Amino acid sequence: MAEPIIKSKQALKEVNGISTEVVCTEFSNYIFVVLTQYGKIGTLISVTPDSRSNDISTPAFSTKVLLGKDEPLTHVCAKHLAMFVSQEAGNRPVLLGLALKDSSIDAIKQIKEIVKSCQVW
Amino acid sequence: MAEPIIKSKQALKEVNGISTEVVCTEFSNYIFVVLTQYGKIGTLISVTPDSRSNDISTPAFSTKVLLGKDEPLTHVCAKHLAMFVSQEAGNRPVLLGLALKDSSIDAIKQIKEIVKSCQVW
Repeated sequence: MAEPIIKSKQALKEVNGISTEVVCTEFSNYIFVVLTQYGKIGTLISVTPDSRSNDISTPAFSTKVLLGKDEPLTHVCAKHLAMFVSQEAGNRPVLLGLALKDSSIDAIKQIKEIVKSCQVW
Repeated sequence: MAEPIIKSKQALKEVNGISTEVVCTEFSNYIFVVLTQYGKIGTLISVTPDSRSNDISTPAFSTKVLLGKDEPLTHVCAKHLAMFVSQEAGNRPVLLGLALKDSSIDAIKQIKEIVKSCQVW
């Protein structure tokens, strides 16, 4: 059997005392990232780079909740967590599953570091 | 570091001469299944058991396209491919990524067997 070409990495770490799991999977048209502190896939958000933006210094991203509660904070967290992934992955959109107990700025920063450790792009 | 609790399995097989990849990941509230012949995540569909159904012999499922083209065939394929997963996983809904070149009944049957080999639920 040939080796699967879809790359996936996952990690489990404590963030402010809360067990946090990260799963990153690379598809040709999407990076799939799940960040969960409940074991759930959580709110599913697509984070898409805006192709109309022509100024590289201020990238625009649109976020859309596909599944789950559509709350303003979700969009903010999603952009914060997925923008750098999209940029590093050649502007591929990110499909993000978000189930966080702690959405503080400090927690988000730590979670970003875990995502970096699961780089598949 | 503790061992990740999110289970994931993948497989790569030929289906009627077409390289077919399957990724199955278990979350507490969803089973995530990607079936791709393009390396893409493809059309994203939620397949949810209908809680109103009280007749066990004829389970009802609702399918919803979250991302991508919403075509009648997509719903048929999604039900065919995800219903048994949901049932085996204690009626958990299935999040299905579908990017198939060949959606023939024969191909679907073979793909179901690959999904069974990636059982994470």
